[in-house]
Amino acid sequence: MPGIRARSPVRGFVIQGSNGEFPFLTSSERLEVVSRVRQAMPKDKLLVAGSGCESTQATVEMTVSMAQVGADVAMVLTPCYYRGRMSSAALIHHYTKVADLSPIPVVLYNVPANTGLDLPVDTVVTLSQHPNIIGIKDSGGDVTRIGLMIHKTRRQDFQVLAGSAGFLLASYAVGAVGGVCALANVLGAQVCQLERLCLTGQWEDAQKLQLRLIEPNTAVTRRFGIPGLKKAMDWLGYYGGPCRAPLQELSPEEEEELRLHFTNNGWL
Amino acid sequence: MPGIRARSPVRGFVIQGSNGEFPFLTSSERLEVVSRVRQAMPKDKLLVAGSGCESTQATVEMTVSMAQVGADVAMVLTPCYYRGRMSSAALIHHYTKVADLSPIPVVLYNVPANTGLDLPVDTVVTLSQHPNIIGIKDSGGDVTRIGLMIHKTRRQDFQVLAGSAGFLLASYAVGAVGGVCALANVLGAQVCQLERLCLTGQWEDAQKLQLRLIEPNTAVTRRFGIPGLKKAMDWLGYYGGPCRAPLQELSPEEEEELRLHFTNNGWL
Amino acid sequence: MPGIRARSPVRGFVIQGSNGEFPFLTSSERLEVVSRVRQAMPKDKLLVAGSGCESTQATVEMTVSMAQVGADVAMVLTPCYYRGRMSSAALIHHYTKVADLSPIPVVLYNVPANTGLDLPVDTVVTLSQHPNIIGIKDSGGDVTRIGLMIHKTRRQDFQVLAGSAGFLLASYAVGAVGGVCALANVLGAQVCQLERLCLTGQWEDAQKLQLRLIEPNTAVTRRFGIPGLKKAMDWLGYYGGPCRAPLQELSPEEEEELRLHFTNNGWL
Amino acid sequence: MPGIRARSPVRGFVIQGSNGEFPFLTSSERLEVVSRVRQAMPKDKLLVAGSGCESTQATVEMTVSMAQVGADVAMVLTPCYYRGRMSSAALIHHYTKVADLSPIPVVLYNVPANTGLDLPVDTVVTLSQHPNIIGIKDSGGDVTRIGLMIHKTRRQDFQVLAGSAGFLLASYAVGAVGGVCALANVLGAQVCQLERLCLTGQWEDAQKLQLRLIEPNTAVTRRFGIPGLKKAMDWLGYYGGPCRAPLQELSPEEEEELRLHFTNNGWL
Repeated sequence: MPGIRARSPVRGFVIQGSNGEFPFLTSSERLEVVSRVRQAMPKDKLLVAGSGCESTQATVEMTVSMAQVGADVAMVLTPCYYRGRMSSAALIHHYTKVADLSPIPVVLYNVPANTGLDLPVDTVVTLSQHPNIIGIKDSGGDVTRIGLMIHKTRRQDFQVLAGSAGFLLASYAVGAVGGVCALANVLGAQVCQLERLCLTGQWEDAQKLQLRLIEPNTAVTRRFGIPGLKKAMDWLGYYGGPCRAPLQELSPEEEEELRLHFTNNGWL
Repeated sequence: MPGIRARSPVRGFVIQGSNGEFPFLTSSERLEVVSRVRQAMPKDKLLVAGSGCESTQATVEMTVSMAQVGADVAMVLTPCYYRGRMSSAALIHHYTKVADLSPIPVVLYNVPANTGLDLPVDTVVTLSQHPNIIGIKDSGGDVTRIGLMIHKTRRQDFQVLAGSAGFLLASYAVGAVGGVCALANVLGAQVCQLERLCLTGQWEDAQKLQLRLIEPNTAVTRRFGIPGLKKAMDWLGYYGGPCRAPLQELSPEEEEELRLHFTNNGWL
Repeated sequence: MPGIRARSPVRGFVIQGSNGEFPFLTSSERLEVVSRVRQAMPKDKLLVAGSGCESTQATVEMTVSMAQVGADVAMVLTPCYYRGRMSSAALIHHYTKVADLSPIPVVLYNVPANTGLDLPVDTVVTLSQHPNIIGIKDSGGDVTRIGLMIHKTRRQDFQVLAGSAGFLLASYAVGAVGGVCALANVLGAQVCQLERLCLTGQWEDAQKLQLRLIEPNTAVTRRFGIPGLKKAMDWLGYYGGPCRAPLQELSPEEEEELRLHFTNNGWL
Repeated sequence: MPGIRARSPVRGFVIQGSNGEFPFLTSSERLEVVSRVRQAMPKDKLLVAGSGCESTQATVEMTVSMAQVGADVAMVLTPCYYRGRMSSAALIHHYTKVADLSPIPVVLYNVPANTGLDLPVDTVVTLSQHPNIIGIKDSGGDVTRIGLMIHKTRRQDFQVLAGSAGFLLASYAVGAVGGVCALANVLGAQVCQLERLCLTGQWEDAQKLQLRLIEPNTAVTRRFGIPGLKKAMDWLGYYGGPCRAPLQELSPEEEEELRLHFTNNGWL
């Protein structure tokens, strides 16, 4: 739960996206994290909680429980272990059931690097018509796809969110309304500034800032993952702390490379 | 838990491999299934239980608990959600910890179609030296890799098991000592006969039988997955039953195609 | 060579990119196409010719010959048949040799969907320092990567070009200087208008136009490929004509779907 | 053209498979190689020539020309640059045309590691019914697939050939009739001995030999490719010689690793 002191003007906090290590938590730990964050965070901020599980039933139960302990919105990962059978019909069935029974709005969560599954655009369009499905966090990085989702859901009030800071400006440029960015854990003010520059049409400044964020963003996501993100949090005055096994700490060489991605862009 | 009446001369039962829908079960359901199977099955058969979880700690706890309720062997899936960080070092750390603390022997479980991760051969060789890691179930289907694992672990008493009936004969031919085959849930006697033909050097008959098993095997695994396997169990006198959502039942067209793979090969 | 009448204000023509069916042409046909286009096209337009071959020597020869028959710039595809050995060192060697010996400037051409190979960013950065390598056409669609290339080559006068109209606006937003777009063969005026809107900072109008171009663009590239592009050219008043085998004409169903992607967006 | 002195009892020679560097040769070089090999080799051996090109027309012409200069059989690679459009219909059209017009028998050539395309089994089955298509060299290494092709073409006299020595025994075990193996360029006698052991049912000895061949085979194919194969040829008394660019020679470290794969298995 970095950023809980709200040093950056984020709209809210996402708990238990991929960087929250949710697959390593028990069900009760997952709820406890949501509950504690709710109590610790400012009242006017949004608490989005990742409630996805592999089965539909478990996802419904987790979503309901997270709502009870204070989540404002449920972000629901695509089930993926049986990805060979996760047809459009199966995914529509899953999300419809969850959205029907959830007391809070649902955001779809697509992160192919972790799940090996890319939620088809047509499936997203179908699901966007459900009154309780309000948006998608797409971490795939394919801006053509992001544009297409925006284009095909423009009649609904459906929010397409960039899932990573590497393509945040590009996503705004094609009509995204926000982002859920791991990088905000370490460079929250800068990510928020990038958003502001985009929303106010200052594209040249936005471009300069965006370019300086790509390398640190890749470093704390694709390249070094959670151990990299946590290490960078330690550097930047937050508490990153250890990872749960089997995730390993960075080697000294990896740490050095990680640091370069920040120093080379003027962030350390 | 098909085959529990032991209509085929299997050496034992694997509970909560991928076809056991373990990602859809709660922790207590997982233990209950092991416990009930233990009570229902013949005393002289082996009970292998899939105890893998994403975190090392949860896997250790699940393994210990499964041993307590009667598992003879723990089959441990590769953690995979953070596959980008599942380096050889991370995997060795994970499996070593689990094997150190497990009261029962451990079998590695590699199933890239579900996990998007292929346990590197060198990692397997390193792990084969642990006294409590006794083998691997490899479902990837790469017989060159299976041969290489056998070749490089021949000094240890390490058991390489074919993870699917589609390449069972080929695996025996390069030195595998057994198989863990979804197809045994429906054509158990035939899979056991194939093993016997291989072990007694009747390769010509083995070949004829193997070729007739490939299509039904692919149909109940890669092609139609668990819903296909369950449907075929119903046809062949077992209880397949429904799947948990989000897995969907087969459509009538899929069911028809599934049936053809059995009838075309003389099994229905 | 569509658009040769210059109905749209393109800066020039790319001959024998992937949509030019160059792998189906003999060496002499490849040169003849360049020569004829040179004669037919306006003098003030740029002629960019795809001169890539698998071997370095053949690429050098083709590049020199294409320059002789009138190409202004050579666009050089990554060699790919032996992609397992196309290390950074191999690619740097290849492109350096070609650029050293080419009488005309060289543009790198990265198109992973066809080659199964993604030119590493660090390799691009190294090559950008060669005085005769002036840019890259990147058709991969990863806008984070495009931004990173721009960021890391900003000291050189290196031109990053969007390789497809699906992510043209996003590429301009992060600093690309142009595009080489299959879609310009059918909706050339619109693609040029999109560029103009981006260059003059009219991002809202650009966004509206971009979104209407995604579906037709995907249809004439990833979805239906060259047969789709040619069919759409026929519809829009150009000469598409037949494909060479083994490429097949569209089926009536495919043609119908292709048409919908244009009509649904108001282009037919 | 290694092995031309027939130090091993091979049935014939394959010229311009992937290891023949055919993509680096001009059309006239390709023909000259076939012609010279024909003159240099024993009359009673088979000359199989790789005649695949991207276009159907070029493949037909190359096949006819190769037959004229002495090829006994044409081995035809799947066209692959436009793999997104290489549907079953397109591939059937391509191969049917080539086989119709070829004066010599045609062998299909499937090598997904190079082409990024896996010839579908159903397409192979359809093509196996053409009187002039006599077999397939499959280098993919999926023995389940190899078994299935054998099973579904058993009514035709269709020859399924293992495309690499890594899975040669396994392929014989499921009914393959031969192999086309890069490794035969360096360990020809051993590969032939492995075949003999398989054909005479000496499976235990075959297994021992097969296991010792996997590492050197992987080293000269997937791991180090053509430069590795050529270096090993030099070591084993053949002429490997240099590669054409952009292929690079092995680094000293790579050479050392390559050597270990041979020495560790007793071949050097």
